[in-house]
Amino acid sequence: MRYVVTGCAGFVASTLVDRLLADGHAVTGIDDFSTGREAFIERARALPGFELIRGDLREPQLALHASRGADAIFHFSANADVRYGTEHPTRDLEQNTIVTVNVLEAARRNGVRDFLFSSTGSVYGEAAVFPTPEDAPMPVQTSLYGASKVAAEGFIQAYAEGFGIRATIFRFVSLLGERYTHGHVVDFVRQLREHPDRLHVLGDGLQRKSYLYVGDCIEAMLTALRAPTGKVNVFNLGTDEYCRVVDSIGWICEAMGVSPTLTYSGGERGWIGDNPFIFLDCARIRGLGWKPTMTIREAVVRTVEWLVETGE
Amino acid sequence: MRYVVTGCAGFVASTLVDRLLADGHAVTGIDDFSTGREAFIERARALPGFELIRGDLREPQLALHASRGADAIFHFSANADVRYGTEHPTRDLEQNTIVTVNVLEAARRNGVRDFLFSSTGSVYGEAAVFPTPEDAPMPVQTSLYGASKVAAEGFIQAYAEGFGIRATIFRFVSLLGERYTHGHVVDFVRQLREHPDRLHVLGDGLQRKSYLYVGDCIEAMLTALRAPTGKVNVFNLGTDEYCRVVDSIGWICEAMGVSPTLTYSGGERGWIGDNPFIFLDCARIRGLGWKPTMTIREAVVRTVEWLVETGE
Repeated sequence: MRYVVTGCAGFVASTLVDRLLADGHAVTGIDDFSTGREAFIERARALPGFELIRGDLREPQLALHASRGADAIFHFSANADVRYGTEHPTRDLEQNTIVTVNVLEAARRNGVRDFLFSSTGSVYGEAAVFPTPEDAPMPVQTSLYGASKVAAEGFIQAYAEGFGIRATIFRFVSLLGERYTHGHVVDFVRQLREHPDRLHVLGDGLQRKSYLYVGDCIEAMLTALRAPTGKVNVFNLGTDEYCRVVDSIGWICEAMGVSPTLTYSGGERGWIGDNPFIFLDCARIRGLGWKPTMTIREAVVRTVEWLVETGE
Repeated sequence: MRYVVTGCAGFVASTLVDRLLADGHAVTGIDDFSTGREAFIERARALPGFELIRGDLREPQLALHASRGADAIFHFSANADVRYGTEHPTRDLEQNTIVTVNVLEAARRNGVRDFLFSSTGSVYGEAAVFPTPEDAPMPVQTSLYGASKVAAEGFIQAYAEGFGIRATIFRFVSLLGERYTHGHVVDFVRQLREHPDRLHVLGDGLQRKSYLYVGDCIEAMLTALRAPTGKVNVFNLGTDEYCRVVDSIGWICEAMGVSPTLTYSGGERGWIGDNPFIFLDCARIRGLGWKPTMTIREAVVRTVEWLVETGE
């Protein structure tokens, strides 16, 4: 099989690329390295099945060229930082929604059979039901990031209906593991490396968060790809548990052997558009036989070990 | 108050413009006349409170200039024809989603307090619940039109959350009445005017459809605007009934005094992406004291009379 992976030098995408190559597939990766890391695809680039295309997917010709003859496209390329949305109001529209339609158009024109999309649990906004199932009450978006992803999902679904592309949409909780480079855990580890005696926490520390280990996420995506499914398939990906930010701080401090003084910015939210609680009902993907191998605690500890080991 | 109305020469928008002017407000209308009609704003243009700006809202500067000092923006400008989406895959993205963000950006930069958006019952895709409430299970989009509108809704909601704009989103059923220029009823009337002895129907004629009279729609929008509401307000707008396409054909034929032979293209859907059933739960807007004054039958007959009278 020949796969296209957009945003291939990112955290999750590069992990998937390594796995697809290990399974003997050919992979064309696309990245503009605005946030992707050269180091993350070093291993892939040493393999003959991998082709790297450098470029910006806002240019429609790029995806069209890259996906010629491909069996499936994993579309990861995105502005992934929900935090700074309000400082650059149109960035999420451009990088997440419009780019997705560019890649969809390429899939349509090239007759690519499968389109797999990395969405987010943020599409549920302030969810009314926990754990939140895929058919939760229609949400109100609370961040430009979530809005841009739910927008992309809608176009993917319409393309599946109108043009016979099989669409698989993954709504992730936050992911952890090797190559994790932004979010709570890395912020805390970096602070503690700089000053092991103190840690500043955005919000009140009581925000509840779900995490999933990146290896478990990849396994879930491949499980969904192999399953006989319909035109549009939406899967939540997460664990059956959640933690509070302060819990993760405890595990991080233990793993790093530090006992900092904690200070809090206060308030229920870390920043405008921060969602205080994402906790997903993952019965649908579990129904295909998948289950996570790591608890949140294990995923946090593994991540801290990787951050410490690599000096990230 | 000073209102901006985008797509001001369209069916519903021009009716709203007339009403706002009659109520003594100042109105700046924007239209590129790609589908809007000069005739629909003739009355408005004769009044001193009305200013017309001709231009294409894909140019971001246009909305920025037009909305300076405005109290509220009614955003109607859109590609409104769900039918031809798959022939022009990116048109809905450009004209409905990107243009909406352009207008939102203008509202944000100019500090406009209220943003009111004409969305659609199509955002519910193939709804799982009838009548469909605003917090129906999260839908799968079945048309590019629905996808582009749900995308626009998401950005509007995120702008409301992030920038303090008060957002009001109206999800309409199909509208009927004076100035109605595309959809089932006009197609049928035009066919019957050309050949009163026969009528060709897309689909099997059993598609169920909801309609609302345009005057009732305008009243509902003004009711929502006056109500003390939250940051994001979503309202379904429709009646408590629906009809089958064949019912509307009976009323049309009766009103026109014709007895055509009917032929059907067959199938449950008139076209790819056609939604066989939109039927909205309008308890929320009724809770504000609004109710429709016309039944679907009355709205169909009024529309036929207008079409016949004007030769449309």
